[in-house]
Amino acid sequence: MPVSFTLAEIASRLGGRVVGNPEALIRQVGSLEHAGPDQITFFSHLRHKGKLAATRAGAVVLGDSAQGLTAIPRIVCDNPYAYFARVSQLFNPVSAPEPGRDPLAQISASARVAVTARIDAGAIVADGARVGERVWVGAGSYVGQGSSIGDDSRLHPSVVVYHDCRIGLRAIIHSGAVIGADGFGIAESVGRWIKIPQIGRVLIGDDVEIGANTTIDRGAIDDTVVEDGVKLDNQVQIGHNVRVGAHTAIAGCVGIAGSASIGQHCTIGGAAVILGHLELVDGVNVSAGTLISRSIHQPGTYTGVFPFDRNASWARNAALLRHLSELADRVRALEELLRRKDKNG
Amino acid sequence: MPVSFTLAEIASRLGGRVVGNPEALIRQVGSLEHAGPDQITFFSHLRHKGKLAATRAGAVVLGDSAQGLTAIPRIVCDNPYAYFARVSQLFNPVSAPEPGRDPLAQISASARVAVTARIDAGAIVADGARVGERVWVGAGSYVGQGSSIGDDSRLHPSVVVYHDCRIGLRAIIHSGAVIGADGFGIAESVGRWIKIPQIGRVLIGDDVEIGANTTIDRGAIDDTVVEDGVKLDNQVQIGHNVRVGAHTAIAGCVGIAGSASIGQHCTIGGAAVILGHLELVDGVNVSAGTLISRSIHQPGTYTGVFPFDRNASWARNAALLRHLSELADRVRALEELLRRKDKNG
Amino acid sequence: MPVSFTLAEIASRLGGRVVGNPEALIRQVGSLEHAGPDQITFFSHLRHKGKLAATRAGAVVLGDSAQGLTAIPRIVCDNPYAYFARVSQLFNPVSAPEPGRDPLAQISASARVAVTARIDAGAIVADGARVGERVWVGAGSYVGQGSSIGDDSRLHPSVVVYHDCRIGLRAIIHSGAVIGADGFGIAESVGRWIKIPQIGRVLIGDDVEIGANTTIDRGAIDDTVVEDGVKLDNQVQIGHNVRVGAHTAIAGCVGIAGSASIGQHCTIGGAAVILGHLELVDGVNVSAGTLISRSIHQPGTYTGVFPFDRNASWARNAALLRHLSELADRVRALEELLRRKDKNG
Repeated sequence: MPVSFTLAEIASRLGGRVVGNPEALIRQVGSLEHAGPDQITFFSHLRHKGKLAATRAGAVVLGDSAQGLTAIPRIVCDNPYAYFARVSQLFNPVSAPEPGRDPLAQISASARVAVTARIDAGAIVADGARVGERVWVGAGSYVGQGSSIGDDSRLHPSVVVYHDCRIGLRAIIHSGAVIGADGFGIAESVGRWIKIPQIGRVLIGDDVEIGANTTIDRGAIDDTVVEDGVKLDNQVQIGHNVRVGAHTAIAGCVGIAGSASIGQHCTIGGAAVILGHLELVDGVNVSAGTLISRSIHQPGTYTGVFPFDRNASWARNAALLRHLSELADRVRALEELLRRKDKNG
Repeated sequence: MPVSFTLAEIASRLGGRVVGNPEALIRQVGSLEHAGPDQITFFSHLRHKGKLAATRAGAVVLGDSAQGLTAIPRIVCDNPYAYFARVSQLFNPVSAPEPGRDPLAQISASARVAVTARIDAGAIVADGARVGERVWVGAGSYVGQGSSIGDDSRLHPSVVVYHDCRIGLRAIIHSGAVIGADGFGIAESVGRWIKIPQIGRVLIGDDVEIGANTTIDRGAIDDTVVEDGVKLDNQVQIGHNVRVGAHTAIAGCVGIAGSASIGQHCTIGGAAVILGHLELVDGVNVSAGTLISRSIHQPGTYTGVFPFDRNASWARNAALLRHLSELADRVRALEELLRRKDKNG
Repeated sequence: MPVSFTLAEIASRLGGRVVGNPEALIRQVGSLEHAGPDQITFFSHLRHKGKLAATRAGAVVLGDSAQGLTAIPRIVCDNPYAYFARVSQLFNPVSAPEPGRDPLAQISASARVAVTARIDAGAIVADGARVGERVWVGAGSYVGQGSSIGDDSRLHPSVVVYHDCRIGLRAIIHSGAVIGADGFGIAESVGRWIKIPQIGRVLIGDDVEIGANTTIDRGAIDDTVVEDGVKLDNQVQIGHNVRVGAHTAIAGCVGIAGSASIGQHCTIGGAAVILGHLELVDGVNVSAGTLISRSIHQPGTYTGVFPFDRNASWARNAALLRHLSELADRVRALEELLRRKDKNG
């Protein structure tokens, strides 16, 4: 059922100051480029000034310094992007799933499933598992033996949760995510790899989102821990015994090796790699594509990426890079030569 | 049912010029190393000359300049690799699936599924979805509410298509691919992440192939678009609102961040990363492992990879690289010193 | 059922020398930090000396040189980590699955499934497939037409094995793994990509473990081969016609491009990339995050990673790196100038 709000109604719910017609009626959010007269958009970067000037949106959310850049009805607020997120939630509410158990689902007699939960076709809830209130277990998803899914969580189709894991409240887990598979625990012995049984669990806090095809391994002995409010994008790999601190956000394709500890309020850019057994304090930002090879004890932004170039230029510079120590030696020799000349001359 | 063709029959269907016995009977394609007397192989790189000399294949596809390198029956053509692709299609035709609906599939009463389609066990076709003629929906695959799958498309087992997405004609989607999961849209507000509802769709053109465990996120507001003829390898991640231009090929493990726009006829090498909001024009080739951090306005090949080395050499050079600006300062100081000497001397 | 052993019983089964009370009763393994008095832990790195001093474990496995560092009961042995792996296996044995076929599984009449195998709900065993003794096919897993799964193998939920592949004995395959999808075989012809049918197979040896969401493509013409004892972590991508030599271990997020040949007893660090058609001899160690662009003919450790730094330092050095060839030219010019001065002066 579509919803509609006037600007005044939006501001009365979410705060902010209306400039222009407070009765402008809004039915949905839209982008600067494509929003129509019954849609509200947002403006948060000066580089989009041209788009703001051209927008056909019915209203716009923007910051105080930008409010003079347009004449259309607007809501002025401190954090336009976050405000817009809340506006979009207003127009796109998530409703609880319709309770029920599909006849093609398989629910163990020893599992405890709330009557308000919905279990879709092909889903499995194994022995001793617990599924909370208003949880949605999507088609073909699997909740392993003894695992629990907190209230209001949503497992999209084809999620796998192995045995003895705990998912907190309001989780959103996207398709293909695998929670609790064995960590990569192997020990070498005379040229053979011996498997170390992975007997820890995965413990996931409240309000965590896990992207499609992301994997979070169970602990080797102790547990792997993802704290409250963590957001993981797609195809992230979290090794065994990792700790991800509360309210940290990790972009797509990131790999975090075993026993690394990531602080709270960190951001890890796409395809970054954190090696094992490292510790990153709270408030660290790792740039996309960066490999972190030592612990980081100070907040801040850290980067390590080879700057791309036209192939020919890159090849020339890369070849020299392999001989950088010789170049440094030659500079040192020149300095030495001139020092001697100075002395002698 | 196995097929067989003489060289003459192959050339009459696919073009090219037969040199040697046109009646040589071929039953399958093979590699230079392992093809037998009833198999046809191909030769496209001079570095394989030795293998060509030693091959026991019954025939070979090769270019004009190479035709004198062997005495076995051969087909001479302009583009041996593409020709070989067509020969292999001739010997390995893909047949339409046998129509039917497995009793263990679940098809909504409001879905429209062509009678020529095949829906395997454990597959789900949700409310309002459309499945075209001769489509194969493999075991355990999921077609979400309101999504459509174009004629002659093939979804291997365990593919997930979320709601409201559109897949074109003749798609091949491999197992574990997830189309239409939420993009990574979050806004920070006083130390918490607020989810931005992802209300766009994924629109996929005709003749697109999508590799195993590849993920393509739905748009945040507008749509994510993959144009005609795009080929995506395994474990590729395409963020929300990305556009991939027609006939672009993307190798395995590539990540493309949100709102990037990739041109037509591009190639992106394995494990490359394209940051968000960038634009790559048509005809750009990104080398494997390269992170693209700025828009590219000229066609050509772009690279940015740290050249690997024995660990000790790498460590020496890498340590110096962290002090490159000091080295440059020292070179500048030497230049200055000599300039002053010249003036004074 | 929980098990318990005295230190003497452990040593009599696994070797090693007991120092301290041989009757100490152990019920499980534990970490140095969290083990209690009925748990055994291990000590293998001097950097954990403080943890060893503080541990409340009932016993510890350690090497000869470390045995004086603690007074708690201990087992002294040559390779503590491997020993600990075996101890953990002793306390955490893997039992054969309970034989049976879930009514919601679908097993082709032409498949041969051992009576000791277990096929869970939603699993599919296709025409002509073979499932060996004591195999577990987890919920929603798929064994394609003509494929075979060796005795004592375990397919966790949602594994996909395409047609005509062979998995050896005692395999462990984690959820979301896809074995035998088409390789990325495409040939360009006048701006279009032509698919090359992928008619090879995937052949996997004995004692192989395959991580969650890992993908192994079938061969284009010949087969993709993973030899005995190989261990693959999560989200690894193995291209078509790759060979992975026996007892090689590959960490998470690694990509190996088509036709690469990796030797035996190699280790490939997380997120490394091996380009196509290369050969790595036995005993090569590739560091995490390294892209290998040429064949490696000598055993040893190879690395190529941009050292990370605070963003500002990185930016300065990276900018200079793009002009490294100019810096080298300037050094050469200085050398030349001084040579001429020396001659003239």
